[in-house]
Amino acid sequence: MDFKQYVTIVEDYPKEGIRFKDITTLMQDGPAYKAAIQALGEYAADLDADLIVGPEARGFVVGCPLAVEMGKGFIPVRKAGKLPREVLSVDYGLEYGKDSLTIHKDSITKGQKVLITDDLLATGGTIEATIKMVEELGGVVVGIAFLIELSYLNGRDRLKNYNTFSLMTY
Amino acid sequence: MDFKQYVTIVEDYPKEGIRFKDITTLMQDGPAYKAAIQALGEYAADLDADLIVGPEARGFVVGCPLAVEMGKGFIPVRKAGKLPREVLSVDYGLEYGKDSLTIHKDSITKGQKVLITDDLLATGGTIEATIKMVEELGGVVVGIAFLIELSYLNGRDRLKNYNTFSLMTY
Repeated sequence: MDFKQYVTIVEDYPKEGIRFKDITTLMQDGPAYKAAIQALGEYAADLDADLIVGPEARGFVVGCPLAVEMGKGFIPVRKAGKLPREVLSVDYGLEYGKDSLTIHKDSITKGQKVLITDDLLATGGTIEATIKMVEELGGVVVGIAFLIELSYLNGRDRLKNYNTFSLMTY
Repeated sequence: MDFKQYVTIVEDYPKEGIRFKDITTLMQDGPAYKAAIQALGEYAADLDADLIVGPEARGFVVGCPLAVEMGKGFIPVRKAGKLPREVLSVDYGLEYGKDSLTIHKDSITKGQKVLITDDLLATGGTIEATIKMVEELGGVVVGIAFLIELSYLNGRDRLKNYNTFSLMTY
């Protein structure tokens, strides 16, 4: 399937000169959304992951259906203050300033194999913070899957020690 | 399946006296998460919905896997400023002050049948705002599905004109 035909390019969003890749038009097409998740599932089939981990909110639109499709558990990574129990917290750099991400401390046990998912690989900051949290909890990152990779931002350089897959590359 | 055994009750979160229902422990159990989504799918089977709609971020953890499971499209409802194209916006009351939710204007066409999903029915404010947006776009709300309903908050009173289902009731 040519998945890119379902992605809408939004010019000058969120600021001038950016050609935003809008995946909502892919998600609103039932067969295309299902096929995209199944394609990530094919990549993941040999990785033997125990758990899927994804950052809010767009990591949920990829990771949650992938987890249910594969019959695996899903662990949410959320912004500070959003998870109700004891969390591990990691600061990460954003384009403008800093923010922090959190994960429940008891969500991963030592040695569990983890597949990380997100919608988009841009500079890789969010995913790098997510990897750090998974590994601090003792998880082993066996793969990282994206719907879209912006290859000109070189986010993959930060992930070169990991098995990484992108369904679409721009 | 006794789904409640997978939900963690967190005392005094987010404030004293609240017994928070944490679904992350359900989601991290692969078979339980899948069974919960499939149970919502059984409810939805006869509704003949064209689309699933859910508010961020926890509506995504229910609605996205349900959409993929059913082969239907998913339409995200997001907070202001998060959707890249032209939106319809609706203000809604929160416990503390007001906020607004948005949906892409071209996401639903007149007469399409919509199933709304969220993790939790509390007072029903978020869902009422979501219904309003779907109907303003010409969609027909054929059902509303929750993982959890807090029946003592009487949110269902606001939804009495709609076909509503909750997997767990407290």
